[in-house]
Amino acid sequence: MTDNDRTEISDLGEFGLIEHLTANFELKQAFSLKGIGDDAAVVDHQGRLTVVTTDLLLEHVHFDLMYMPMKHLGYKSVVVNLSDLYAMNAEPKQITVSVALSNRFSVEAMEELYDGIHIACERYGVDLIGGDTSSSVKGLVISVTALGEANEDELVYRDGAKPGDILCVSGDLGAAYMGLQLLEREKRIYIENPQIQPDLEGHPYIVGRQLKPEARRDVIELLREKGLKPTSMIDLSDGLSSDLQHICRQSGTGALVYESKLPIHEETYNMALEFHMDPTTAMLNGGEDYELLFTLPADESYKVLEMEGITIIGKITDASEGIRLETKNGNEQEMPAQGWNHLG
Amino acid sequence: MTDNDRTEISDLGEFGLIEHLTANFELKQAFSLKGIGDDAAVVDHQGRLTVVTTDLLLEHVHFDLMYMPMKHLGYKSVVVNLSDLYAMNAEPKQITVSVALSNRFSVEAMEELYDGIHIACERYGVDLIGGDTSSSVKGLVISVTALGEANEDELVYRDGAKPGDILCVSGDLGAAYMGLQLLEREKRIYIENPQIQPDLEGHPYIVGRQLKPEARRDVIELLREKGLKPTSMIDLSDGLSSDLQHICRQSGTGALVYESKLPIHEETYNMALEFHMDPTTAMLNGGEDYELLFTLPADESYKVLEMEGITIIGKITDASEGIRLETKNGNEQEMPAQGWNHLG
Repeated sequence: MTDNDRTEISDLGEFGLIEHLTANFELKQAFSLKGIGDDAAVVDHQGRLTVVTTDLLLEHVHFDLMYMPMKHLGYKSVVVNLSDLYAMNAEPKQITVSVALSNRFSVEAMEELYDGIHIACERYGVDLIGGDTSSSVKGLVISVTALGEANEDELVYRDGAKPGDILCVSGDLGAAYMGLQLLEREKRIYIENPQIQPDLEGHPYIVGRQLKPEARRDVIELLREKGLKPTSMIDLSDGLSSDLQHICRQSGTGALVYESKLPIHEETYNMALEFHMDPTTAMLNGGEDYELLFTLPADESYKVLEMEGITIIGKITDASEGIRLETKNGNEQEMPAQGWNHLG
Repeated sequence: MTDNDRTEISDLGEFGLIEHLTANFELKQAFSLKGIGDDAAVVDHQGRLTVVTTDLLLEHVHFDLMYMPMKHLGYKSVVVNLSDLYAMNAEPKQITVSVALSNRFSVEAMEELYDGIHIACERYGVDLIGGDTSSSVKGLVISVTALGEANEDELVYRDGAKPGDILCVSGDLGAAYMGLQLLEREKRIYIENPQIQPDLEGHPYIVGRQLKPEARRDVIELLREKGLKPTSMIDLSDGLSSDLQHICRQSGTGALVYESKLPIHEETYNMALEFHMDPTTAMLNGGEDYELLFTLPADESYKVLEMEGITIIGKITDASEGIRLETKNGNEQEMPAQGWNHLG
C-alpha cells in the first residue's frame, strides 16, 4: 500500500512538529503575553482570579479512534475542559495542550487533531499558549489544561446548594451515552464483518453529542442576562446521579429528582429502547453530556421557566433525606448511583 | 506470592482515590482560593502575571519504574515543571497533577508517588490545587501543570541574548545522563541474570542527579541578591547544545562555547570514560540536568565570578557565526547538535 499523504513525525522532529502544528494559532487574548516557544507561557489577569482545570485523555480509555475522527477528538479535548470552567461561572481564556503519540501517527493525523483544537479555540475565543509533543510507546495521550478568569463574586462552586433550592439542568440527558452505545455496537459489527458498513444514519443527534460535544457558554450567558447566579453548579461529565452526588456531598444536602421532568431527546429515547434499556438509566448514569446542572433559590423559579432549554428537574432537600428519585408512578426511591467510573 | 500490603485501586474508586491521595495536601499559598474538589481550581494573582508550564510524562518513554522509585518519580515530575518556571525567573505557586494508571498499580504505589509530590510541594512551597486520576490500558502517565507568578519586569525569556553577552551555566553538566547510562546498564545486566545485584555503589552523585533532580531556585535567588537579571535564560532539559540552540534561534544570535570551561563532576567524568564516551559529549548532549543556562551583559562578569556554582562557559556572538565550540586544543568547530530528542 502506498500512502503518499503520510509524513513521518520523525521528518519534522519534536520541536519542528509542535511549531508546525501551532503555526496558525495566534494569540488573541490581549493578556496572553507569551505563548508557545519558551519555558512557560505568561498570562496577565489584571487582578481577576485565575481558574484552572486539567484533563488527561488516553486512547482506548477515554476515546476510540475507530470511530472518533482526529479533528473531533481535538475539538472535544478542548471543550471538556472549557465546560469545567463554565461550570465555575468563569470565562475560558487560555489552554495548554500536550500530546504523546506513537509512530503509528503521521504528521497529517496530528494536523487533523490540531485543526480540531484550533476550531475549538476560535469558537470559544481561547488562546493555545503552551504544551508540547513527545513520543509514546503505544497509543495517543492528550493532556489539556484550561485557564479562565472570574471576579471572586461571580464564581459558583459545588458547595452552595441550600435545602429548598430548585435543581436545574440545561439541554437534554443521556444522548452522548446512547451515541457511544451505538458507535460501540457498529464497531463490533464492523470488526466481526468488515463488509458491513456502520449504520449511523438516522441518529445524527446522539452521534454528534458523543463525537462533538459543546460547552454551554450560552447557558452561562443566559443566566447572566437574567441576573441569575446559581448557588451551586457542576458540568455533567460523569452522569447526573454521580455529579448530583458531588453537589449534595459538598453542600451538605440531599436532593429529590422527578423522573418525569428529566429532559430527553427523541433519538436518545428510541435508541435506549432499541438497546432494551430504560431511558431513565441513560439519563441518570450516562456521562459526557457536558450540560450544566445547577441550583437556584426557589423564588427564582419563574425566571427559569422563561429560559429556553433549561429544565427544573428537582429540588435540594435536607441531607438526612439523601438523594432520591421520584419515579413516574409516584414512588420515591434512592437514586441509583452508578457513575461513569473510569476506574470501574 | 501473597502481598498483604496491596490495596486495589478499585477498592477506593476514582473519587475515593484522589481524595485519599491528596488528603494531606493543605493549601498554603494565601491566594490558592480553591483546590481539588470542584470543576476547577481558583487562584488569585493580585495583579501579578501568571506563568504556566506543563509536562506529560509516560512510563517507558520518560521514566522506567525498574529503577525509578515511585516517590522519586513523584518528586521529579513536579521539579521538572518548577524548573521551567524558574527559567522564566518566575516564582512557582501552584501545580495540578493528573495521573492515569493501569490495574498493575496498587493504592500503596500511588501513595508513594503522591508522597514524592508532597515532598516537592513542601520543599518548593507550592500548592497542589487540581488534577485527577483515571485508568490506563497499560503503564503510568503523569501530567503536571505548574503555575507561577512574576512581575512583568522580572520575566526572563529566551529571546533577549545580545552579541557580546556572557553565557553562564549553573552546577555541572552531563551527570543525569551518565546516571541514566549506569542505571540502564545495570538494568540490562539484571534482566540477563537476576542473580547479579545492580552495582550502583560509588556513584551516588550521578544516580541522584537522574533520579532526584532539583530545580535551581537557589540560583534565581542568588541572581536576585546580586542585582543581576539575565538577558535570556532556559533550563537544561534537552542538553546544552539543544537548549543553547533555542536561545540563539529566538534571540537571533550565535554563540561560542569553550570546551575547557564546561563544568563536570568527577563521577560524571569517570563514568563517561568507563563507557568509552567523550565526557564533553555527555556535557553537551546529556539531558535532564535541570541547570539554568543564561546570558548576562559582559560588564557583569565580575559579579558572576563571585557567585559560587556559576560558570561562564562562553559568549553570545552574531548569528552569522553560528553556534560553535572552541575545543580544548584551540580549534573551533560547529557545535555538535544532537539533542535529547524523544521523537528521535
